[in-house]
Amino acid sequence: MATLVFPDHPSPVADAEAIYNACKGWGTHEKTVIGIIAHRNWTQRKLIKQAYHDQYQEDLIRRFEKELSGGLERAVYRLMLDPEDRDAVLLHVAIKQGGVPDYRVIIEQACIYCPEEFLGVRRAYQARYKRSFEEDLAQCSTADFRRLLVALVGVYRYSGSEIDAKLAQAEAEILHNAIKKKEYNHEEIVRILSTRSKAQLIATFNRYKDEHGIAITKDLKEDTGNQYLTALRMTIRAMVDPQKYYEKLVRQALTKTGADEDDLIRVIVTRAERDLRDIKDLYFKRNSVTLDQAVAKETSGHFEALLLALLGKQE
Amino acid sequence: MATLVFPDHPSPVADAEAIYNACKGWGTHEKTVIGIIAHRNWTQRKLIKQAYHDQYQEDLIRRFEKELSGGLERAVYRLMLDPEDRDAVLLHVAIKQGGVPDYRVIIEQACIYCPEEFLGVRRAYQARYKRSFEEDLAQCSTADFRRLLVALVGVYRYSGSEIDAKLAQAEAEILHNAIKKKEYNHEEIVRILSTRSKAQLIATFNRYKDEHGIAITKDLKEDTGNQYLTALRMTIRAMVDPQKYYEKLVRQALTKTGADEDDLIRVIVTRAERDLRDIKDLYFKRNSVTLDQAVAKETSGHFEALLLALLGKQE
Repeated sequence: MATLVFPDHPSPVADAEAIYNACKGWGTHEKTVIGIIAHRNWTQRKLIKQAYHDQYQEDLIRRFEKELSGGLERAVYRLMLDPEDRDAVLLHVAIKQGGVPDYRVIIEQACIYCPEEFLGVRRAYQARYKRSFEEDLAQCSTADFRRLLVALVGVYRYSGSEIDAKLAQAEAEILHNAIKKKEYNHEEIVRILSTRSKAQLIATFNRYKDEHGIAITKDLKEDTGNQYLTALRMTIRAMVDPQKYYEKLVRQALTKTGADEDDLIRVIVTRAERDLRDIKDLYFKRNSVTLDQAVAKETSGHFEALLLALLGKQE
Repeated sequence: MATLVFPDHPSPVADAEAIYNACKGWGTHEKTVIGIIAHRNWTQRKLIKQAYHDQYQEDLIRRFEKELSGGLERAVYRLMLDPEDRDAVLLHVAIKQGGVPDYRVIIEQACIYCPEEFLGVRRAYQARYKRSFEEDLAQCSTADFRRLLVALVGVYRYSGSEIDAKLAQAEAEILHNAIKKKEYNHEEIVRILSTRSKAQLIATFNRYKDEHGIAITKDLKEDTGNQYLTALRMTIRAMVDPQKYYEKLVRQALTKTGADEDDLIRVIVTRAERDLRDIKDLYFKRNSVTLDQAVAKETSGHFEALLLALLGKQE
């Protein structure tokens, strides 16, 4: 369930005008901006952008970039883009940082979004950057990461619920044998994780646990800080239970010194209109403190206000 | 340009009735069947199927399977399926033969069809087989072939016409260095061929030829009968010039002893409503004999009549 609280039929023209007045002259009345932006769904925000442009011949996103700063600016920017375009920007940021791509963003989209949805993001990426995401990803990654990530991005996964129990058993064994020999980059691991349907993979992981008494994610753990292993575990977790995956991501983001703003923003912005309530429930169960409380503790000012509004706090 | 000759508004009910009468009782009046099936576009054939089913509570494709045989049966079967479904069947046949998959069929669809169109085929594959094509392909192929084919199938290639001349130069060198060392299965070759846009690849291949005085396809030739090399060359040829690719495929099919029926049927059936006229023109230029004459020489009977009708022969 979503957390976003928004009115049914707000007037985009009135919203645009209120935002214009809040940004006019010296200083910005952030509270007004947040009161609108964080209480509209993306269709409504799209209409506000349009109304603002028609009324003031100015791009609202650019205006916000001038008026806002820090975490608040980044969060508002992500809120104001169309979801597919926003996700394309997130993918681009993930591979443009140099070094190993931020595989979490890629894995999230490739494994959690449904095939049709992720395809929409890949189309938006092409429209924005005039290249395919695949070619940028393949160019800026290497070796094991390239093989895993490009395969995850390329598959148009079957979404049906049929499973083949024999296949699950056979592939649980293939996985186990490769893991036992510590051949984590084995071609078969990538093949199975990147091509099988989620239902089939869950059956395979269950079989793995039944046969070997340990979850495959536990078996994929070493104390070496091997990032590729982390990516494999994330792939599995994202596929098996997206909400649990997000809960862990947020938990880790909030326990880092100063909190990892980007992760926090990403989860809250991308899930507020979807399943953020479920993620909040899981968070409370796991941490005995509400996500709102944890966010309030780690953030401050207008940025805090925006995140809490997206988390469902009523004025 | 297409070769198929078909009337504007035939009556599907009248067509269905004529086919029913042609198949009734002992023996089949193949000439009637061909006269209809080979002179309707796929929308019209779809309506005939529907009308036949409504009228006689029988699946027309199954009826044809009972009534027809040999090359004629196979060609009619491919004609009667919806294009995406037919292509999904072709993909399935290509990987279910055991051993190395029939990479030609896979390369054709992955490299010649536009991304959206090929995606439609992958969706049709899932609807028919309840699995993704990627998982079947990855499971039944190995090593170099798996890496190349799975990568070609997975990419949602950028279709824009922009090119980056510097990148073309850099990647022409990467390709040349790998080929010079005979590292044909080099990861970079697969990356470049499978992710770059067609426009970019053509610029890269042109650069290759300018710099090294030889076409990349010529450089990818050895007398060892290495099938992987053949697949690489086909990938390049299919991407650079689809009609020329098809012309060569038909030429080779017709010069084999007894002609390769499957290739011949595939090219004629899948291209009759598209660019078979251009392929015919190329064929004549290259062989100084018309494709119709060559087909007539290598085939016979009703099968010949069907192929010639699809090639545009008027009654």
